[in-house]
Amino acid sequence: MRPNIVLFGDSITEESFSDGGWGANLAHHFSRTVDVVLRGYSGYNTRWALRILDKALGGAEDDPPAAVTVFFGANDASLPDRSGGFQHVPVLEYGHNLNAMCSSIKKRWPKTVVILITPPPIDEDGRVKNPYGEDTSGLPERTNESAGVYAKACISVAKESGLPVIDIWSKMQQIPGWEKNLLRDGLHLTASGNRVLFEEVVETLRKEGLSLETLPTDQPLFSEIDLVDPLDAFKN
Amino acid sequence: MRPNIVLFGDSITEESFSDGGWGANLAHHFSRTVDVVLRGYSGYNTRWALRILDKALGGAEDDPPAAVTVFFGANDASLPDRSGGFQHVPVLEYGHNLNAMCSSIKKRWPKTVVILITPPPIDEDGRVKNPYGEDTSGLPERTNESAGVYAKACISVAKESGLPVIDIWSKMQQIPGWEKNLLRDGLHLTASGNRVLFEEVVETLRKEGLSLETLPTDQPLFSEIDLVDPLDAFKN
Repeated sequence: MRPNIVLFGDSITEESFSDGGWGANLAHHFSRTVDVVLRGYSGYNTRWALRILDKALGGAEDDPPAAVTVFFGANDASLPDRSGGFQHVPVLEYGHNLNAMCSSIKKRWPKTVVILITPPPIDEDGRVKNPYGEDTSGLPERTNESAGVYAKACISVAKESGLPVIDIWSKMQQIPGWEKNLLRDGLHLTASGNRVLFEEVVETLRKEGLSLETLPTDQPLFSEIDLVDPLDAFKN
Repeated sequence: MRPNIVLFGDSITEESFSDGGWGANLAHHFSRTVDVVLRGYSGYNTRWALRILDKALGGAEDDPPAAVTVFFGANDASLPDRSGGFQHVPVLEYGHNLNAMCSSIKKRWPKTVVILITPPPIDEDGRVKNPYGEDTSGLPERTNESAGVYAKACISVAKESGLPVIDIWSKMQQIPGWEKNLLRDGLHLTASGNRVLFEEVVETLRKEGLSLETLPTDQPLFSEIDLVDPLDAFKN
């Protein structure tokens, strides 16, 4: 049986198997070694995610995933007095929820690698041009400053718990033109944005011992099959 | 737990999570309903696939996949006297192997939908321009005629066993410019080719009762969550 890597998160996870998506890229990268399991829930904040965690991760107690990415915060950081207000979760509760989710996973499966991912940066201009529902206020329902506060809270939870974290909020803003090149609508990722996140996830997994070099390959590779006696490769 | 759809096949399955791939498209389409499990083995013919079937499908006896796609033949149809000769499997044995794999799956899991997929057509010009290994013969190691013989054998196995079959060999050749538009190197699929196959698989699954309309959604959709009392959606 191949190990699983579970992607648990909001819409940026749910849509990660669309063209050029970071989830599909991961599944392709690990095509003979790992099953990438999609558990993205569009619109969810950590308050709701905490309530579905056990059902979402599922699985047997004796069959832990090799890794779980926990990628929430974009919705928690919605401003409380704007059109996404009902998704807002105060940053203190966000930290507690994240911590509760990570603790729950590590308690159940101590050897599972839990990777936190901060919310991405926000291009406010992109949000105004792609307003939520029937919002005609001309104001973004999320700001980059608010997303940054949640990113810092996410990093704090990771440091306190000794977990690896991908600070995609900072990482993306180091790339010139990130606002339009990496974000499709000010929030969700373009193919280039997905590529940045994919590479960060692969590198983080590698540092945690999960890579093509360390994971066993499922069944003999074509290059290992003998031209003269092909069936020899399948004797075991 | 979500139902699984297992994609069992050769390189056209193994690379199905690359950009625009039919596997990634399926996972995206069923992002809240089904887990799409990748079991593609590059270079494999049915003789080798038969030997790894049980390990590849894995899983517990009491947890059958909802569906399995069985997509082999492109390698079996390699001409015996050319550079891909060691992958060649005579068409009679190909039919027997396909039948043995499908019977084995249906015996183990009678309710699992088994979908056969014929080998795709071959653009011989594309194969000559992308020769196998160090082949300098100027001759393609596969021909469209040979692939067609295997496609017909695949359809026969499906009819005899009462299984659904996707005749992608015929389907693709009905599309003008299929040689270059649908095939990348005369054999593997372009994004457009992947799209054609993806749509055929979705339609076949739908006819077998597996669609977004019939499969339960994992956790409440964002649109089902009440703005005033969001947690109400998570009470059960």
